[in-house]
Amino acid sequence: MPLTPEQRDEIDQQRSNPVQTRRATVPALEEILYEAFPALDHGFVRVIDYMGDDGAVVQAARVSYGRGTKKVSEDAGLIRYLMRHWHSTPFEMCEIKYHVKLPIFVARQWIRHRTANVNEYSARYSILDKEFYIPEPEHLSAQSEINRQGRGDVLQGDEAARVLDLLREDSERAYRGYAEMLNQDDQGAALDPNRSGLARELARMNLSLNYYTQWYWKVDLHNLMHFLRLRADSHAQYEIRVYADIMIDILQRWVPMTSEAFRDYRLGGTHLSATGLAIVKRMLAGEIVVQGDSGLSKREWRELMEQLGRSPDA
Amino acid sequence: MPLTPEQRDEIDQQRSNPVQTRRATVPALEEILYEAFPALDHGFVRVIDYMGDDGAVVQAARVSYGRGTKKVSEDAGLIRYLMRHWHSTPFEMCEIKYHVKLPIFVARQWIRHRTANVNEYSARYSILDKEFYIPEPEHLSAQSEINRQGRGDVLQGDEAARVLDLLREDSERAYRGYAEMLNQDDQGAALDPNRSGLARELARMNLSLNYYTQWYWKVDLHNLMHFLRLRADSHAQYEIRVYADIMIDILQRWVPMTSEAFRDYRLGGTHLSATGLAIVKRMLAGEIVVQGDSGLSKREWRELMEQLGRSPDA
Amino acid sequence: MPLTPEQRDEIDQQRSNPVQTRRATVPALEEILYEAFPALDHGFVRVIDYMGDDGAVVQAARVSYGRGTKKVSEDAGLIRYLMRHWHSTPFEMCEIKYHVKLPIFVARQWIRHRTANVNEYSARYSILDKEFYIPEPEHLSAQSEINRQGRGDVLQGDEAARVLDLLREDSERAYRGYAEMLNQDDQGAALDPNRSGLARELARMNLSLNYYTQWYWKVDLHNLMHFLRLRADSHAQYEIRVYADIMIDILQRWVPMTSEAFRDYRLGGTHLSATGLAIVKRMLAGEIVVQGDSGLSKREWRELMEQLGRSPDA
Amino acid sequence: MPLTPEQRDEIDQQRSNPVQTRRATVPALEEILYEAFPALDHGFVRVIDYMGDDGAVVQAARVSYGRGTKKVSEDAGLIRYLMRHWHSTPFEMCEIKYHVKLPIFVARQWIRHRTANVNEYSARYSILDKEFYIPEPEHLSAQSEINRQGRGDVLQGDEAARVLDLLREDSERAYRGYAEMLNQDDQGAALDPNRSGLARELARMNLSLNYYTQWYWKVDLHNLMHFLRLRADSHAQYEIRVYADIMIDILQRWVPMTSEAFRDYRLGGTHLSATGLAIVKRMLAGEIVVQGDSGLSKREWRELMEQLGRSPDA
Repeated sequence: MPLTPEQRDEIDQQRSNPVQTRRATVPALEEILYEAFPALDHGFVRVIDYMGDDGAVVQAARVSYGRGTKKVSEDAGLIRYLMRHWHSTPFEMCEIKYHVKLPIFVARQWIRHRTANVNEYSARYSILDKEFYIPEPEHLSAQSEINRQGRGDVLQGDEAARVLDLLREDSERAYRGYAEMLNQDDQGAALDPNRSGLARELARMNLSLNYYTQWYWKVDLHNLMHFLRLRADSHAQYEIRVYADIMIDILQRWVPMTSEAFRDYRLGGTHLSATGLAIVKRMLAGEIVVQGDSGLSKREWRELMEQLGRSPDA
Repeated sequence: MPLTPEQRDEIDQQRSNPVQTRRATVPALEEILYEAFPALDHGFVRVIDYMGDDGAVVQAARVSYGRGTKKVSEDAGLIRYLMRHWHSTPFEMCEIKYHVKLPIFVARQWIRHRTANVNEYSARYSILDKEFYIPEPEHLSAQSEINRQGRGDVLQGDEAARVLDLLREDSERAYRGYAEMLNQDDQGAALDPNRSGLARELARMNLSLNYYTQWYWKVDLHNLMHFLRLRADSHAQYEIRVYADIMIDILQRWVPMTSEAFRDYRLGGTHLSATGLAIVKRMLAGEIVVQGDSGLSKREWRELMEQLGRSPDA
Repeated sequence: MPLTPEQRDEIDQQRSNPVQTRRATVPALEEILYEAFPALDHGFVRVIDYMGDDGAVVQAARVSYGRGTKKVSEDAGLIRYLMRHWHSTPFEMCEIKYHVKLPIFVARQWIRHRTANVNEYSARYSILDKEFYIPEPEHLSAQSEINRQGRGDVLQGDEAARVLDLLREDSERAYRGYAEMLNQDDQGAALDPNRSGLARELARMNLSLNYYTQWYWKVDLHNLMHFLRLRADSHAQYEIRVYADIMIDILQRWVPMTSEAFRDYRLGGTHLSATGLAIVKRMLAGEIVVQGDSGLSKREWRELMEQLGRSPDA
Repeated sequence: MPLTPEQRDEIDQQRSNPVQTRRATVPALEEILYEAFPALDHGFVRVIDYMGDDGAVVQAARVSYGRGTKKVSEDAGLIRYLMRHWHSTPFEMCEIKYHVKLPIFVARQWIRHRTANVNEYSARYSILDKEFYIPEPEHLSAQSEINRQGRGDVLQGDEAARVLDLLREDSERAYRGYAEMLNQDDQGAALDPNRSGLARELARMNLSLNYYTQWYWKVDLHNLMHFLRLRADSHAQYEIRVYADIMIDILQRWVPMTSEAFRDYRLGGTHLSATGLAIVKRMLAGEIVVQGDSGLSKREWRELMEQLGRSPDA
């Protein structure tokens, strides 16, 4: 349960008072505005605000005075064209703002995307809640044997149980230390009224990377799609993919034409090198190509065959 | 007259159909949404869209669930605090999008601000209108004798008349060449139906830098204020200041608390070096300081005295 | 002749005094440091400074203490891997700085790449030289009939001659007006010693977009490759491609491994949409696919067949 | 001791082989290139590479062909002018690259500066060393009573001892859990040879925020000074100030003229609001101003008096 009753009240209040605007407005997105979509065990994604819609992309591409064409098919075609030819600036004309609650180790990956605006909850200023991430057993994967940056099979039995115990115990203990250093009891009252406790900016260092933080994150549509392409990818860590997947669903509500083009050209698309393209052309001409005469290393060959949905040994 | 009747119609249509939204909305800005504020002889500034308000700044600074405090005075105090201590991220949470028509030489200064999104009207793709900037006589200044990057007195009589003639004639002639190369007559019809004319992307090079272009320009509130501080400054070129001044008026409608803090801390504020501050302290202690024992060069001394509203020789 | 004798002297002086450094150094790039590579009729590209080499990319990818592996083949393989999987940050660790002289209409396209640092020669402060771009006859293309943003056949005979005359005459005339407004004769002396002339920041607006400007442009290796991919593309305007091609040659000197990977994965590579990929898979499986049952529009089908080097009608 | 003997060897090797270059070179910075300057208990700052010097700033400001003026005093004056008038682009023409080892909670503050390039050591890919930050007793400050984001007095006696014990024990325990989940003993060998251990990308979440990470961080001179101004400020957290102070010393070696101007205008300088400036002018004119008729809130008045080195009650 990521939200307290007080927080729910505040959210309900925001949702309850629609006003009039002349701005481009997206009813499907208005419907879910401010709502918290749960992510992992304590996290969430909420849309706080947005600017623009599919029409704003079209309008910017044409630098027009009004809302652009009336024909939906023309707009969709233009958006597909822009996506296919990597025109990024019209997509930069839309903006979205989220409130996200997420484990710190996920936040550390996320923040590497620099072309966004962020305001994070400050643990120098405030005290963090006791909320930490414990994976579901089915996501408790072993280290991959073949990919140093990947996951292997799911841990079983004793080993899984032991890992969960360790994570829970160490997280609990970390918070006990944090609270004691802050001179706080469970209710947030001072343990010793004559002490002010260690500075918050220092005490926070005792918490582990699975503790939750939260932030406001604002990004334009172009950079959002770049983020989603990388973070919804199968090579991304599961815990950040959960967030990316929620945001992809929201994208579909917000800008359905752009979302369709994004799925086709980015999420489902693939990139071929010059060498890879030459191989495809030879194969299309009926030639049987094998790794040895492909010009690719074994690893590159395997990756190409995977892209084409073929066995590396065929 | 910067707008055609067709363009006015498109704008009126956008303005006429308010819809419902749950987003933060600013009535004073809604009032002027899409309206064209004239700038120079053919240019304008229009607000096309916006995201957020003063409350969104407060909300982001606190990473809160709802709309933040109810007390206006607390919000204004927090915004002043953020401005005073150069906290930029909460202001980045608001965004505004303009449609601007401006001479190319102004556009070239403007674009140097990189932290914004731009879609410019493409003269590779479309034909530019015959609209060029001619200064009002009172802005026809001579080169400054003391500041290599500044303006001196206003030109008078024959000299002024000759400059205006040259600007007008050369601009007219540039467009005649442009149209002829494009194989177009005054009505946009082909001069010679058997020719397709020079490529637009080449023909445009015949136009001079006072021709008007237009773009969509989107920026967050923090970077907007940075832009306005530099471009509304008395050292900025008059022609870009005209645009900055319009945008400062719009800022006041959009985010009045932020606007007040911006005027106090940025537009009207000043910066003292360590040496300058030491001089001020000596003067406040009753000492009479002269340039010779100030540690400043003559130019630096003059600039400091100007900041303090004092004669350099006092 | 883009350089004066004085400028050549200054450049020779920079080239003549090698000193010692412990930094990563690239002899093949040192060889051409400061040299002006001619571009168009009066422009050039000069490398002024650089930081890092192929080894610095490897070193950053590994966050290592020393220079990384000794084996060249491992480094090349890692660089190919980084390029294939769109890892951008290791390439951001190298930086290059150019001095470029280019027509203003080219500079206007170039500056749209915001992730670079620029210092441009100031026509507010200084007087521009009388140097303007006139295309070679073989680049004087007609407007494309099928692509609104492209070039068609080369203009011939009278039409070509007339265009060149117009460009030359109008450019000459624009400078005459500029100089007269500035109160300057051909030697840079005052026409009328009692006048200071129009402010430079105003007079410059009389010049046309084919006049040359110059700037220092500094960019990291990742963003440089992004720029080169877009600007060396066949859809880019010829006049900017000239610059991109020179810079691609310089890239090969600077970071040969990265350059090879860039040519294979970016310049020569191609992108398939999900729909396009599905079609390729069907074709590889022996199926004959036609546009009608491809899921692609005619235009998209034509572009895909082009990518695969096949006739659209096959 | 932040470095192993192997790491020292690698560093020594880099330092031992100077080569020839024609680039701008700074002997005082070459002297310390690659050296590790210790920070906190296990961290360090090393300069890995640099581009440009004070001359490059001057050269860029003038877009010159050679090295600019020969007179040192002119260059210093120009650099002071650029700094005074907030001209940022010439300073962007210099670049520096560091290798930094730092606690994760410091890295989280640092990374908020987005205008830099970063490659961080990957705990998805590699195993982190057992190195965590424990403050020196004199930096173990209590929470400030008056500033929610600050430090108060240093903790004493039992309370201090208890905090240090908690930090050490919890950090030790976190690493034990981490290693056990990874199935690793103290020597890095498998505890159970039949298990591959939890995926590294998951196990890392058990570590606390005082664990050390490391990265390559590259930034231009303008953005570096912006970072240093904020992070060397007395309001910055002590643990990041340690790094900023080291980097300020390095700045002095690298670009001494820029460094002097930076100290005068930024580090030692101060900013007055319009209201504050009006008060200073009144005081300079001999008037006695008190908070009540100043137009400032009590907090703002106190901050202004502090800037001017005066008692708030005077």
